[in-house]
Amino acid sequence: MSQLFDQNRALLEGALQAMKTREFWTPFPEVPSGRIYGETAREDGEKAFAALVGKPFDIPGHPEEKRLGQEVSPWGMDLDLTYPAASRETLISTSKAALEDWSNASVEARVGVLLETLVRLNKMSFLIGHATVHTTGQAFPMAFQAGGPHAQDRGLEAVAAAYAEMTATADKAVWEKPQGRNTPIVLEKHWRIVPRGISLTIGCNTFPGWNGYPGLFASLATGNTAIVKPHPMAILPLAITVKVLREVLAEEGLPVDAVLLAVDEPDAPVTKDLVAAPDVKLIDYTGSSAFGDWIRKNAGDALVFTEETGVNSVVITGTDDFGGMCDNLAFSLALYSGQMCTSPQNIYVPESGIETDQGPKTFDEVFTGIAAAIDRLLADPKQASGVCGTIVNPASLDRLERARAAGRVLRESGKTGTGRSATPLIVAVSRDDTLHRDECFGPVVFAVASKSAGDAIDQAASLAREKGAITAALYASEQDLIDRAARAFAHAGVNLSVNLTGNIFVNQSAAFSDFHVTGANPAGNASLTDTAFVAPRFRRVMIRWPKSA
Amino acid sequence: MSQLFDQNRALLEGALQAMKTREFWTPFPEVPSGRIYGETAREDGEKAFAALVGKPFDIPGHPEEKRLGQEVSPWGMDLDLTYPAASRETLISTSKAALEDWSNASVEARVGVLLETLVRLNKMSFLIGHATVHTTGQAFPMAFQAGGPHAQDRGLEAVAAAYAEMTATADKAVWEKPQGRNTPIVLEKHWRIVPRGISLTIGCNTFPGWNGYPGLFASLATGNTAIVKPHPMAILPLAITVKVLREVLAEEGLPVDAVLLAVDEPDAPVTKDLVAAPDVKLIDYTGSSAFGDWIRKNAGDALVFTEETGVNSVVITGTDDFGGMCDNLAFSLALYSGQMCTSPQNIYVPESGIETDQGPKTFDEVFTGIAAAIDRLLADPKQASGVCGTIVNPASLDRLERARAAGRVLRESGKTGTGRSATPLIVAVSRDDTLHRDECFGPVVFAVASKSAGDAIDQAASLAREKGAITAALYASEQDLIDRAARAFAHAGVNLSVNLTGNIFVNQSAAFSDFHVTGANPAGNASLTDTAFVAPRFRRVMIRWPKSA
Repeated sequence: MSQLFDQNRALLEGALQAMKTREFWTPFPEVPSGRIYGETAREDGEKAFAALVGKPFDIPGHPEEKRLGQEVSPWGMDLDLTYPAASRETLISTSKAALEDWSNASVEARVGVLLETLVRLNKMSFLIGHATVHTTGQAFPMAFQAGGPHAQDRGLEAVAAAYAEMTATADKAVWEKPQGRNTPIVLEKHWRIVPRGISLTIGCNTFPGWNGYPGLFASLATGNTAIVKPHPMAILPLAITVKVLREVLAEEGLPVDAVLLAVDEPDAPVTKDLVAAPDVKLIDYTGSSAFGDWIRKNAGDALVFTEETGVNSVVITGTDDFGGMCDNLAFSLALYSGQMCTSPQNIYVPESGIETDQGPKTFDEVFTGIAAAIDRLLADPKQASGVCGTIVNPASLDRLERARAAGRVLRESGKTGTGRSATPLIVAVSRDDTLHRDECFGPVVFAVASKSAGDAIDQAASLAREKGAITAALYASEQDLIDRAARAFAHAGVNLSVNLTGNIFVNQSAAFSDFHVTGANPAGNASLTDTAFVAPRFRRVMIRWPKSA
Repeated sequence: MSQLFDQNRALLEGALQAMKTREFWTPFPEVPSGRIYGETAREDGEKAFAALVGKPFDIPGHPEEKRLGQEVSPWGMDLDLTYPAASRETLISTSKAALEDWSNASVEARVGVLLETLVRLNKMSFLIGHATVHTTGQAFPMAFQAGGPHAQDRGLEAVAAAYAEMTATADKAVWEKPQGRNTPIVLEKHWRIVPRGISLTIGCNTFPGWNGYPGLFASLATGNTAIVKPHPMAILPLAITVKVLREVLAEEGLPVDAVLLAVDEPDAPVTKDLVAAPDVKLIDYTGSSAFGDWIRKNAGDALVFTEETGVNSVVITGTDDFGGMCDNLAFSLALYSGQMCTSPQNIYVPESGIETDQGPKTFDEVFTGIAAAIDRLLADPKQASGVCGTIVNPASLDRLERARAAGRVLRESGKTGTGRSATPLIVAVSRDDTLHRDECFGPVVFAVASKSAGDAIDQAASLAREKGAITAALYASEQDLIDRAARAFAHAGVNLSVNLTGNIFVNQSAAFSDFHVTGANPAGNASLTDTAFVAPRFRRVMIRWPKSA
């Protein structure tokens, strides 16, 4: 048994239990409060971040043939960070050299290291929050949650799922086959967990930790070594993660090179080289479907788990809380300027309008209500910046311009006043237009008139089926419409949120309860974290022999 | 709840329990005895088979645009069987039409149908035994077991694994998130199981049921519809299976077209067309790696589970029961004339010979012992035919000729006297030769001299890693050699049997205990039946809404 495993066993057991019941649970509080994280935690995090900025980031013992790094904060801060970097050949051979020792460590030893790492990362959530702010452009409250406790939740979920799967069947058995009146045949059988090999985590710019941890922790738990390839603009959160993992590995006398960082710069990307490396047997990828297709074609016999492009929709057919609906959607649309994989893009409303608690509302009046709610939410510049964060990729602003020209503007995009920002644009388009039928990543909302409530559901669901979607939201007062939407979105493989108001949003996906991405439409082939996400990462191999009498 | 589910619940629970402990268990007795299967079972089976021969095989309600079938018994019997056949377009559209109703049936309804089907198939094991004899060329005792109870075991295992996975997490939850001093957020969440779509089972000539049932039953259990494409020479066992499935579906008022038969003839194969059909989302394939590669390249976004080409080895480094070893290997080599995916092909022995309980044995003496044991086993022509069966594909006889010319013959292949037969050929080849480094399907055994015991292990394991292997056997007296082999074959992803003597053979893989194929080398990407084999066949989709106070 492993001491770290014993020490963190309650964490594991809590996760295992919650993943069965799917009820609310988390060991990592999401509130960035000194009362929870320690009185000086906030200040300590700021200091720790300031101490990193402008210096070479140190990962003791990591292969280093050069130093790379060109991260730029979307908030305008000068980061001037560099990281140890090495050639593909060095990274692959170093990872390969660690594989045998890491895979021979017991399940408990590996899981113990990963649980301990998550606990330590949790204590560093303020630092990670700042690192996330200045790489993803999120505002601090969101960066703290998404880069800290929520990412840690997702990592823990993956570790627990992997542990459950590795221990689901006996690792030893005495197999006794009756032979009628003769002596039975008795075999002893032992099984060992064999990993696939080297895993590659390809991080994204917007949620490096939240999207990166599940694959990384699942692959490591199941005995694979890991190469973490962050987005060139969002290295720091994953570099900190790799560093902590290696610290725990070193303390346990396990191979630190079980996890390596593969840093690159925008003008000299290394991802394709790593994907094509024959020793890479597992790939976790978050990003565009265009590059996802390239990975699938070039990954050889590696298993590929993806989260990709999609078009999320809201369908509004009626509500008995028009104000609550508008406020709820306003936050969903403004949050991180629509740069979440779960952010709604298209809002379908019947052209004849809807019934509400405030009486009938025309198509335009629905969006007037939503626009007004956005305006209220973002009236105070500080709060606007805290909700919208910044635009992490300038290309989003180009898309915004194209969208503005594509239809009738129902709400103009604005600035928050801090960093590179843009608040939600709402543009009315015809159902026969094409622009809204593809992902338009960023603060763009398309208002689409449908012929009827049923048509709105069908349009949104069929688009999800065709182009992918991770979330869908429905506002409806009639049960038959809810049932129809439940069937249509299930068929399209999209999780559906119905009549959300108050402090819970369609964008939110809670670990241990919500399976993030279904894997059943083009927006991703994997679900975080179901069994299919962890089980294929390892194999069982048996040895059997006659049991001595 | 489903009545068939309740009725067969003990079967399911027994399987679930055994799959955890991996201890011996089966509900389907493997002995073709009237005392077990009913006094008239043997005679009834013969009559039922005779009643089928020479007539159009009837599957009520099955799409039928023409009738096809050119099966020829390797035993020489005139079968003259035809089956209902339809175009790819008809099969796909018919399967698609059944998908919604089948996937909307409850987990228990689907699992109940499949359990009941297996129970009914078990009662028909004598008929299925004869159908298997005259399509695979196996002798009756093996055909009864492999086509009957052992195949039913594998089917049950797949159903149980799918059931366990579908019910592993709650299908409903109340999710209550605390909000400090405020009212908690309370959501109701429901999940539904969503299948991938149409599944395709591509059967093989040698074990149509045993290899076909796992994928077929796993796909159906998880709500997919199924098209069963048998090998053109081994249709009948799967046609009977499809017919029984459709009978149970009809009785339950469920869509009979959830399972269809796709028959073809050798000169007009339809497999490629079906593989390439965009609506086919799951493919289970048993056969050559060459065609496996074609499938992988042309399957679009379908998930592909395979069992493919491999080279199984025996490593002999010493034994304290030379006679028992020779007898055991003799049976393993002669059984079904080496036409099992688990049959050994290469036997590695140190060039300096080995130590045994009968004193030292030279390389040649080891094979003289094995050859003599084969001769004893096959001395009686009736027993010889009962062990060896027939050669199902004449191409095996060509390979045998090529192998004979490739080295020094240590045992000549002979005839059993019944049907198209060939007993094991043993040919000594040099470790530097190439022929033995690829699969040579059929009754061919290569005797390979190695430099040492360790070298023998390394050669066999590295070949397995490179070319694939499903089984490996080791005879060794020293624990350090056993440990070395355990490591080497685990690394190569091969299950290893050590020092088998008596009535248990390396070829045998027992459901509920042995995972058949590891998925960790080129001999297959799937393991029968682990979680990775069932979990990706379906997805979970959620609907959530605020819980009313």
